[in-house]
Amino acid sequence: MDLNQYRYFLKDSIRKTIDFSKTDQNKGIDTPPIEKPYSPDAKRIELITTDWHEIYDITLSEAIKNRESRRKYNQDPLTLMELSFLLWATQGVRLYAGNYAFRNVPSAGCRHALETYLAVFNVESSQTGKELEPGLYRYLPLTHELLFEFSKENLSDEMIMATFGQNFAGQSAVTFIWSAIPYRMEWRYGLDSHKVIAMDAGHVGQNMYLACEAIGAGTCAIGAYDQEYLDELLRLDGKDEFSIYLAPVGKY
Amino acid sequence: MDLNQYRYFLKDSIRKTIDFSKTDQNKGIDTPPIEKPYSPDAKRIELITTDWHEIYDITLSEAIKNRESRRKYNQDPLTLMELSFLLWATQGVRLYAGNYAFRNVPSAGCRHALETYLAVFNVESSQTGKELEPGLYRYLPLTHELLFEFSKENLSDEMIMATFGQNFAGQSAVTFIWSAIPYRMEWRYGLDSHKVIAMDAGHVGQNMYLACEAIGAGTCAIGAYDQEYLDELLRLDGKDEFSIYLAPVGKY
Repeated sequence: MDLNQYRYFLKDSIRKTIDFSKTDQNKGIDTPPIEKPYSPDAKRIELITTDWHEIYDITLSEAIKNRESRRKYNQDPLTLMELSFLLWATQGVRLYAGNYAFRNVPSAGCRHALETYLAVFNVESSQTGKELEPGLYRYLPLTHELLFEFSKENLSDEMIMATFGQNFAGQSAVTFIWSAIPYRMEWRYGLDSHKVIAMDAGHVGQNMYLACEAIGAGTCAIGAYDQEYLDELLRLDGKDEFSIYLAPVGKY
Repeated sequence: MDLNQYRYFLKDSIRKTIDFSKTDQNKGIDTPPIEKPYSPDAKRIELITTDWHEIYDITLSEAIKNRESRRKYNQDPLTLMELSFLLWATQGVRLYAGNYAFRNVPSAGCRHALETYLAVFNVESSQTGKELEPGLYRYLPLTHELLFEFSKENLSDEMIMATFGQNFAGQSAVTFIWSAIPYRMEWRYGLDSHKVIAMDAGHVGQNMYLACEAIGAGTCAIGAYDQEYLDELLRLDGKDEFSIYLAPVGKY
């Protein structure tokens, strides 16, 4: 592909070439799951739901003004409360209506083609004082829970490898990794899906930056990573689901 | 191009195929302008700079919670103060350091490949009470000014045409249109530029949603538009600069 084809991706010219009557949605094919399914036996951790503006009361204007790329973190843990807030702000569901789930970020056609994985290094439950077992988790937005995926030796080093040596990806309290399940968007928009999935990841990333300012944590989103290495690390097939954006988070 | 090629665009696989020693940046080619140049004779309008958190004090948490897609607006104007805030929140410059300008949104490698155009329909200057002349403007982030581009009969109808009949694009107080000048990013990242430009547009769009909540206005970002029609309307060449995202804004 040449430069013009890459630029073409950023345009919406393709829309005029698509027969939208032939999308899977308009052919009557079932809506894909709005959350990736999981085994009923899987270990899940309840997250905190509360009136967040009563707890984290930074103004929007201050959060925008104070935001900057923060790549150096101290050893303080994130609390489960703080992690719950970050997940609420970035992918939380506000209204679940059957085949649709409205979230705290916008998405083209309310399709929400993203999943959230967490490499947890240093998170403590504020209620129990116990540490969350380090390892890989997935956010379950419909029930506001964490799903434990697996633990892995040297996950910190692996995350640094997967980001071409960006140390802060493995030296955070938790590193968020967003994947895309593109069919969720393609079901409705066909080939006119991929630019808006990238923009949706930007919506999420921006709320992450701002929400970090509210809890006294820092982040710096990562767009430069080893696609195949990271997908394998997360056990994603790299075809129907693959990683697209990252954000390490830590106190500083 | 087939589905896999479109999905490929969302991945960072391409990074491993690029010889970054051969990007224009590493070849020593001059940095492209960080703001699109304009004629010194052009009509410019000073925008307001202030401590925004003293004026718009909604909490971040409330802004996230209250945000929704708002496509119906009343006839109330936006004030120049409100417009200044929206521009500050979405593309404002916080630190200008020669070849770099740090803005109130993040951008990959601080490249900031976006420009902001405004179709102004109903904006009044709070100082003078005078209406801003309807027409097309461009935001000048380095000096926090508006540049008057041109007036056009039926701009409202044209905006609706350019968005395939989405009436709210022409029935707003002001409609933001972001363009990309992709070379700004390509200068540094070559073919690994376009996904991050789309994600940057998402960062901007999300701050727009939240900032609207702060001023009692509504927005709903638009990703579905007639690329060639809109570029021609904005007098962009469609090759080195083209529109990528829109956001009508109005009181409701």
